[in-house]
Amino acid sequence: MELTFITSNEGKFREAEQIAAKYGISLKWKKMSYLEPQGSSLEEIASLSAEMLSKELKETFFIEDSGLFIEALKGFPGPYSSYVFKTIGNEGILRLMDGVEDRRAYFLAVIAYFDGSEVQTFTGRVDGEISTEMRGSGGFGFDPIFLYNGRTFAEMGEEKNAVSHRRRALEGFFTCLSDR
Amino acid sequence: MELTFITSNEGKFREAEQIAAKYGISLKWKKMSYLEPQGSSLEEIASLSAEMLSKELKETFFIEDSGLFIEALKGFPGPYSSYVFKTIGNEGILRLMDGVEDRRAYFLAVIAYFDGSEVQTFTGRVDGEISTEMRGSGGFGFDPIFLYNGRTFAEMGEEKNAVSHRRRALEGFFTCLSDR
Repeated sequence: MELTFITSNEGKFREAEQIAAKYGISLKWKKMSYLEPQGSSLEEIASLSAEMLSKELKETFFIEDSGLFIEALKGFPGPYSSYVFKTIGNEGILRLMDGVEDRRAYFLAVIAYFDGSEVQTFTGRVDGEISTEMRGSGGFGFDPIFLYNGRTFAEMGEEKNAVSHRRRALEGFFTCLSDR
Repeated sequence: MELTFITSNEGKFREAEQIAAKYGISLKWKKMSYLEPQGSSLEEIASLSAEMLSKELKETFFIEDSGLFIEALKGFPGPYSSYVFKTIGNEGILRLMDGVEDRRAYFLAVIAYFDGSEVQTFTGRVDGEISTEMRGSGGFGFDPIFLYNGRTFAEMGEEKNAVSHRRRALEGFFTCLSDR
Protein backbone atom coordinates (compact mmCIF):
# COMPACT_ATOMS: atom_id res chain seq x y z
CA MET A 1 0.00 0.00 0.00
CA GLU A 2 1.24 3.45 -0.91
CA LEU A 3 0.23 6.65 0.88
CA THR A 4 1.06 10.32 0.33
CA PHE A 5 2.19 12.43 3.30
CA ILE A 6 2.02 16.16 2.60
CA THR A 7 4.48 18.11 4.72
CA SER A 8 7.20 20.67 4.20
CA ASN A 9 9.18 19.11 7.07
CA GLU A 10 11.63 16.38 6.05
CA GLY A 11 12.17 15.25 9.67
CA LYS A 12 8.49 14.51 10.09
CA PHE A 13 8.39 12.61 6.83
CA ARG A 14 11.41 10.42 7.71
CA GLU A 15 9.98 9.55 11.13
CA ALA A 16 6.60 8.62 9.63
CA GLU A 17 8.25 6.62 6.85
CA GLN A 18 9.99 4.37 9.39
CA ILE A 19 6.83 3.74 11.34
CA ALA A 20 4.79 3.10 8.18
CA ALA A 21 7.26 0.46 7.00
CA LYS A 22 6.31 -1.72 9.99
CA TYR A 23 2.75 -1.76 8.72
CA GLY A 24 3.80 -2.64 5.19
CA ILE A 25 2.91 0.86 4.07
CA SER A 26 5.19 2.75 1.72
CA LEU A 27 5.07 6.51 2.16
CA LYS A 28 5.41 8.99 -0.66
CA TRP A 29 6.60 12.48 0.29
CA LYS A 30 4.79 15.42 -1.24
CA LYS A 31 6.88 18.36 -0.09
CA MET A 32 4.64 21.37 0.01
CA SER A 33 3.21 23.86 2.45
CA TYR A 34 -0.51 24.56 2.51
CA LEU A 35 -2.98 26.97 4.00
CA GLU A 36 -3.93 26.26 7.60
CA PRO A 37 -7.02 28.04 8.86
CA GLN A 38 -7.27 29.48 12.35
CA GLY A 39 -9.57 27.44 14.56
CA SER A 40 -10.47 26.58 18.10
CA SER A 41 -8.93 23.10 18.05
CA LEU A 42 -6.14 21.25 16.30
CA GLU A 43 -8.67 18.68 15.00
CA GLU A 44 -10.75 21.42 13.41
CA ILE A 45 -7.69 23.05 11.85
CA ALA A 46 -6.32 19.81 10.43
CA SER A 47 -9.71 18.76 9.04
CA LEU A 48 -10.31 22.09 7.35
CA SER A 49 -6.78 22.15 5.94
CA ALA A 50 -7.27 18.68 4.47
CA GLU A 51 -10.64 19.61 3.03
CA MET A 52 -9.20 22.65 1.32
CA LEU A 53 -6.27 20.62 -0.01
CA SER A 54 -8.59 17.88 -1.27
CA LYS A 55 -10.32 20.36 -3.57
CA GLU A 56 -7.02 21.07 -5.27
CA LEU A 57 -5.41 17.67 -5.27
CA LYS A 58 -8.05 15.04 -6.07
CA GLU A 59 -5.92 12.22 -4.67
CA THR A 60 -5.65 10.49 -1.29
CA PHE A 61 -3.19 11.97 1.21
CA PHE A 62 -2.67 12.80 4.85
CA ILE A 63 -1.29 15.75 6.80
CA GLU A 64 -0.20 16.09 10.42
CA ASP A 65 -0.30 18.95 12.90
CA SER A 66 0.67 19.08 16.55
CA GLY A 67 0.80 21.36 19.56
CA LEU A 68 1.54 21.72 23.26
CA PHE A 69 -1.46 22.27 25.54
CA ILE A 70 -0.90 23.59 29.07
CA GLU A 71 -3.79 23.06 31.47
CA ALA A 72 -3.15 26.09 33.70
CA LEU A 73 -2.98 28.35 30.62
CA LYS A 74 -6.33 27.20 29.20
CA GLY A 75 -4.60 25.12 26.57
CA PHE A 76 -2.15 27.84 25.45
CA PRO A 77 -0.16 27.69 23.17
CA GLY A 78 -2.26 24.89 21.61
CA PRO A 79 -3.02 25.34 17.92
CA TYR A 80 -0.55 28.24 17.67
CA SER A 81 2.41 26.44 19.23
CA SER A 82 4.78 27.07 16.37
CA TYR A 83 4.06 30.82 16.28
CA VAL A 84 4.39 31.03 20.07
CA PHE A 85 7.66 29.12 19.96
CA LYS A 86 9.05 31.51 17.34
CA THR A 87 8.10 34.58 19.38
CA ILE A 88 8.21 34.06 23.17
CA GLY A 89 9.82 30.60 23.05
CA ASN A 90 10.54 28.27 25.96
CA GLU A 91 11.61 31.19 28.10
CA GLY A 92 8.23 32.83 27.67
CA ILE A 93 6.40 29.66 28.67
CA LEU A 94 8.58 29.28 31.77
CA ARG A 95 7.80 32.88 32.73
CA LEU A 96 4.08 32.30 32.33
CA MET A 97 4.36 29.18 34.49
CA ASP A 98 6.57 30.73 37.17
CA GLY A 99 5.11 29.82 40.57
CA VAL A 100 2.15 27.99 38.99
CA GLU A 101 1.42 24.80 40.89
CA ASP A 102 -0.62 22.91 38.31
CA ARG A 103 2.03 22.06 35.71
CA ARG A 104 0.08 19.47 33.70
CA ALA A 105 0.48 19.66 29.94
CA TYR A 106 0.17 17.43 26.92
CA PHE A 107 1.41 17.23 23.39
CA LEU A 108 -1.28 16.42 20.85
CA ALA A 109 -0.79 15.31 17.26
CA VAL A 110 -3.62 15.18 14.75
CA ILE A 111 -3.58 13.41 11.43
CA ALA A 112 -6.16 14.32 8.83
CA TYR A 113 -6.57 11.73 6.11
CA PHE A 114 -8.41 12.32 2.86
CA ASP A 115 -9.43 8.91 1.52
CA GLY A 116 -10.64 10.19 -1.84
CA SER A 117 -14.11 11.04 -0.67
CA GLU A 118 -13.93 12.33 2.91
CA VAL A 119 -11.59 13.49 5.68
CA GLN A 120 -11.01 11.47 8.85
CA THR A 121 -8.84 12.47 11.82
CA PHE A 122 -6.64 10.41 14.13
CA THR A 123 -5.07 11.78 17.29
CA GLY A 124 -2.16 10.86 19.53
CA ARG A 125 -1.52 12.38 22.92
CA VAL A 126 1.26 12.21 25.48
CA ASP A 127 0.78 13.60 28.98
CA GLY A 128 3.49 15.24 31.01
CA GLU A 129 4.38 18.38 32.91
CA ILE A 130 6.06 21.70 32.28
CA SER A 131 9.49 21.73 33.89
CA THR A 132 10.79 24.67 35.92
CA GLU A 133 13.84 25.11 33.70
CA MET A 134 15.06 24.10 30.25
CA ARG A 135 16.88 20.76 30.19
CA GLY A 136 18.46 18.64 27.48
CA SER A 137 19.74 19.33 24.02
CA GLY A 138 17.81 16.87 21.84
CA GLY A 139 14.49 17.34 20.09
CA PHE A 140 13.15 20.71 19.03
CA GLY A 141 10.53 23.28 19.95
CA PHE A 142 9.12 22.87 23.43
CA ASP A 143 10.94 19.55 24.07
CA PRO A 144 13.39 21.08 26.62
CA ILE A 145 10.54 22.07 28.97
CA PHE A 146 8.25 19.05 28.58
CA LEU A 147 8.76 16.53 31.39
CA TYR A 148 7.81 12.92 30.76
CA ASN A 149 8.50 10.50 33.62
CA GLY A 150 11.15 12.72 35.17
CA ARG A 151 13.09 13.61 32.03
CA THR A 152 12.38 16.27 29.43
CA PHE A 153 11.72 15.22 25.84
CA ALA A 154 14.99 16.99 24.98
CA GLU A 155 16.85 14.75 27.45
CA MET A 156 15.32 11.57 26.04
CA GLY A 157 16.92 11.74 22.59
CA GLU A 158 15.75 8.93 20.32
CA GLU A 159 13.72 7.42 23.16
CA LYS A 160 11.26 10.24 22.75
CA ASN A 161 10.19 8.89 19.37
CA ALA A 162 9.00 5.69 21.02
CA VAL A 163 6.40 7.48 23.13
CA SER A 164 5.68 10.66 21.21
CA HIS A 165 2.23 11.98 20.40
CA ARG A 166 3.16 11.88 16.71
CA ARG A 167 4.03 8.18 16.86
CA ARG A 168 0.81 7.42 18.70
CA ALA A 169 -1.26 9.26 16.10
CA LEU A 170 0.59 7.56 13.22
CA GLU A 171 0.25 4.11 14.76
CA GLY A 172 -3.48 4.55 15.30
CA PHE A 173 -3.84 5.70 11.73
CA PHE A 174 -1.73 2.95 10.16
CA THR A 175 -3.42 0.27 12.30
CA CYS A 176 -6.79 1.43 11.12
CA LEU A 177 -5.69 1.36 7.47
CA SER A 178 -4.17 -2.11 7.79
CA ASP A 179 -7.41 -3.45 9.25
CA ARG A 180 -9.47 -2.44 6.25
CA MET B 1 -22.33 54.88 -2.06
CA GLU B 2 -23.14 51.62 -0.31
CA LEU B 3 -20.56 49.17 1.05
CA THR B 4 -20.82 45.78 2.74
CA PHE B 5 -18.84 45.17 5.94
CA ILE B 6 -18.57 41.48 6.82
CA THR B 7 -18.10 40.94 10.55
CA SER B 8 -19.70 38.93 13.31
CA ASN B 9 -18.99 41.78 15.75
CA GLU B 10 -21.79 44.35 16.07
CA GLY B 11 -19.58 46.82 17.98
CA LYS B 12 -17.11 46.93 15.10
CA PHE B 13 -19.90 47.46 12.62
CA ARG B 14 -21.48 50.34 14.58
CA GLU B 15 -18.13 52.12 14.96
CA ALA B 16 -17.40 51.78 11.23
CA GLU B 17 -20.92 52.89 10.33
CA GLN B 18 -20.46 56.21 12.16
CA ILE B 19 -17.12 56.91 10.52
CA ALA B 20 -18.41 55.94 7.06
CA ALA B 21 -21.31 58.38 7.37
CA LYS B 22 -18.86 61.31 7.40
CA TYR B 23 -17.64 60.20 3.99
CA GLY B 24 -21.17 59.90 2.62
CA ILE B 25 -20.82 56.12 2.62
CA SER B 26 -23.67 53.97 3.83
CA LEU B 27 -22.57 50.67 5.38
CA LYS B 28 -24.50 47.44 5.07
CA TRP B 29 -23.83 44.85 7.77
CA LYS B 30 -23.34 41.26 6.68
CA LYS B 31 -23.20 39.39 9.96
CA MET B 32 -21.19 36.27 9.41
CA SER B 33 -18.00 34.64 10.52
CA TYR B 34 -15.54 33.33 7.97
CA LEU B 35 -12.43 31.23 7.72
CA GLU B 36 -9.21 33.03 8.63
CA PRO B 37 -6.01 31.29 7.57
CA GLN B 38 -2.91 31.21 9.73
CA GLY B 39 -0.20 33.45 8.40
CA SER B 40 2.90 35.39 9.23
CA SER B 41 1.28 38.83 9.09
CA LEU B 42 -2.10 40.38 9.64
CA GLU B 43 -2.03 41.75 6.08
CA GLU B 44 -1.45 38.29 4.64
CA ILE B 45 -4.22 36.79 6.77
CA ALA B 46 -6.76 39.49 5.89
CA SER B 47 -5.94 39.29 2.16
CA LEU B 48 -6.26 35.52 2.04
CA SER B 49 -9.50 35.61 4.03
CA ALA B 50 -10.96 38.14 1.62
CA GLU B 51 -9.82 36.15 -1.39
CA MET B 52 -11.46 33.00 -0.07
CA LEU B 53 -14.65 34.90 0.74
CA SER B 54 -14.70 36.51 -2.71
CA LYS B 55 -14.96 33.08 -4.33
CA GLU B 56 -18.15 32.41 -2.41
CA LEU B 57 -19.75 35.82 -2.44
CA LYS B 58 -19.22 37.41 -5.84
CA GLU B 59 -20.00 40.90 -4.53
CA THR B 60 -17.90 43.78 -3.19
CA PHE B 61 -17.24 43.80 0.56
CA PHE B 62 -14.59 44.48 3.17
CA ILE B 63 -13.40 42.78 6.35
CA GLU B 64 -11.22 44.02 9.20
CA ASP B 65 -8.73 42.30 11.48
CA SER B 66 -6.50 43.73 14.18
CA GLY B 67 -3.84 42.78 16.69
CA LEU B 68 -1.38 43.95 19.32
CA PHE B 69 2.31 43.75 18.42
CA ILE B 70 4.92 43.94 21.19
CA GLU B 71 8.45 44.76 20.04
CA ALA B 72 10.34 42.95 22.82
CA LEU B 73 8.28 39.78 22.17
CA LYS B 74 9.03 39.69 18.42
CA GLY B 75 5.55 40.93 17.59
CA PHE B 76 3.71 38.51 19.89
CA PRO B 77 0.70 38.17 20.19
CA GLY B 78 0.28 39.74 16.73
CA PRO B 79 -2.00 37.84 14.37
CA TYR B 80 -3.17 35.58 17.21
CA SER B 81 -4.13 38.34 19.63
CA SER B 82 -7.66 37.15 20.21
CA TYR B 83 -6.57 33.57 20.97
CA VAL B 84 -3.84 34.84 23.31
CA PHE B 85 -6.28 37.15 25.06
CA LYS B 86 -8.70 34.27 25.64
CA THR B 87 -5.98 32.06 27.11
CA ILE B 88 -3.22 33.93 28.97
CA GLY B 89 -4.94 37.36 28.87
CA ASN B 90 -3.58 40.68 30.07
CA GLU B 91 -2.07 39.00 33.11
CA GLY B 92 -0.01 36.72 30.89
CA ILE B 93 1.29 39.63 28.83
CA LEU B 94 2.27 41.54 31.99
CA ARG B 95 4.15 38.47 33.22
CA LEU B 96 6.00 38.15 29.94
CA MET B 97 6.91 41.84 30.13
CA ASP B 98 7.90 41.82 33.80
CA GLY B 99 11.23 43.63 34.11
CA VAL B 100 11.50 44.15 30.35
CA GLU B 101 12.81 47.61 29.60
CA ASP B 102 11.72 48.00 25.97
CA ARG B 103 7.93 48.31 26.34
CA ARG B 104 7.12 49.58 22.83
CA ALA B 105 4.02 48.10 21.24
CA TYR B 106 1.47 48.96 18.60
CA PHE B 107 -2.03 48.08 17.64
CA LEU B 108 -2.49 47.37 13.95
CA ALA B 109 -5.76 47.14 12.04
CA VAL B 110 -5.97 45.81 8.51
CA ILE B 111 -8.87 46.21 6.15
CA ALA B 112 -9.11 43.92 3.15
CA TYR B 113 -11.43 45.21 0.45
CA PHE B 114 -12.68 43.13 -2.46
CA ASP B 115 -13.71 45.54 -5.20
CA GLY B 116 -15.31 42.91 -7.40
CA SER B 117 -12.12 41.93 -9.15
CA GLU B 118 -9.24 42.10 -6.66
CA VAL B 119 -8.35 42.50 -2.98
CA GLN B 120 -6.64 45.62 -1.62
CA THR B 121 -5.51 46.21 1.96
CA PHE B 122 -5.48 49.36 4.10
CA THR B 123 -3.76 49.57 7.47
CA GLY B 124 -4.00 51.77 10.53
CA ARG B 125 -1.51 51.77 13.36
CA VAL B 126 -1.27 53.39 16.76
CA ASP B 127 1.97 53.34 18.74
CA GLY B 128 2.19 53.08 22.49
CA GLU B 129 3.68 51.08 25.34
CA ILE B 130 2.78 48.15 27.52
CA SER B 131 1.93 49.38 31.02
CA THR B 132 3.23 47.66 34.15
CA GLU B 133 -0.27 47.02 35.50
CA MET B 134 -3.85 46.91 34.23
CA ARG B 135 -5.62 50.27 34.38
CA GLY B 136 -9.08 51.48 33.41
CA SER B 137 -12.40 49.80 32.84
CA GLY B 138 -13.34 50.88 29.31
CA GLY B 139 -12.57 49.19 26.03
CA PHE B 140 -11.92 45.50 25.69
CA GLY B 141 -9.14 42.99 25.08
CA PHE B 142 -5.67 44.41 25.67
CA ASP B 143 -6.92 47.98 26.18
CA PRO B 144 -6.16 47.99 29.96
CA ILE B 145 -2.44 47.43 29.36
CA PHE B 146 -1.89 49.61 26.26
CA LEU B 147 -0.53 53.04 27.21
CA TYR B 148 -1.09 55.92 24.82
CA ASN B 149 0.21 59.31 25.95
CA GLY B 150 0.21 58.34 29.62
CA ARG B 151 -3.21 56.73 29.80
CA THR B 152 -4.29 53.22 28.87
CA PHE B 153 -6.85 52.73 26.10
CA ALA B 154 -9.18 51.41 28.81
CA GLU B 155 -8.85 54.71 30.71
CA MET B 156 -9.58 56.80 27.62
CA GLY B 157 -13.17 55.67 27.12
CA GLU B 158 -14.74 57.18 23.99
CA GLU B 159 -11.58 59.22 23.36
CA LYS B 160 -9.85 56.04 22.28
CA ASN B 161 -12.08 55.81 19.21
CA ALA B 162 -10.68 59.11 17.96
CA VAL B 163 -7.12 57.79 17.74
CA SER B 164 -7.57 54.04 17.36
CA HIS B 165 -5.83 51.88 14.78
CA ARG B 166 -9.24 50.80 13.52
CA ARG B 167 -10.35 54.38 12.90
CA ARG B 168 -7.09 55.14 11.12
CA ALA B 169 -7.48 52.13 8.83
CA LEU B 170 -11.14 52.94 8.13
CA GLU B 171 -10.38 56.60 7.40
CA GLY B 172 -7.62 55.70 4.99
CA PHE B 173 -9.91 53.27 3.26
CA PHE B 174 -12.91 55.61 3.03
CA THR B 175 -10.73 58.50 1.88
CA CYS B 176 -9.35 56.38 -0.90
CA LEU B 177 -12.84 55.31 -2.00
CA SER B 178 -14.16 58.87 -1.95
CA ASP B 179 -11.29 60.03 -4.15
CA ARG B 180 -12.15 57.61 -6.93
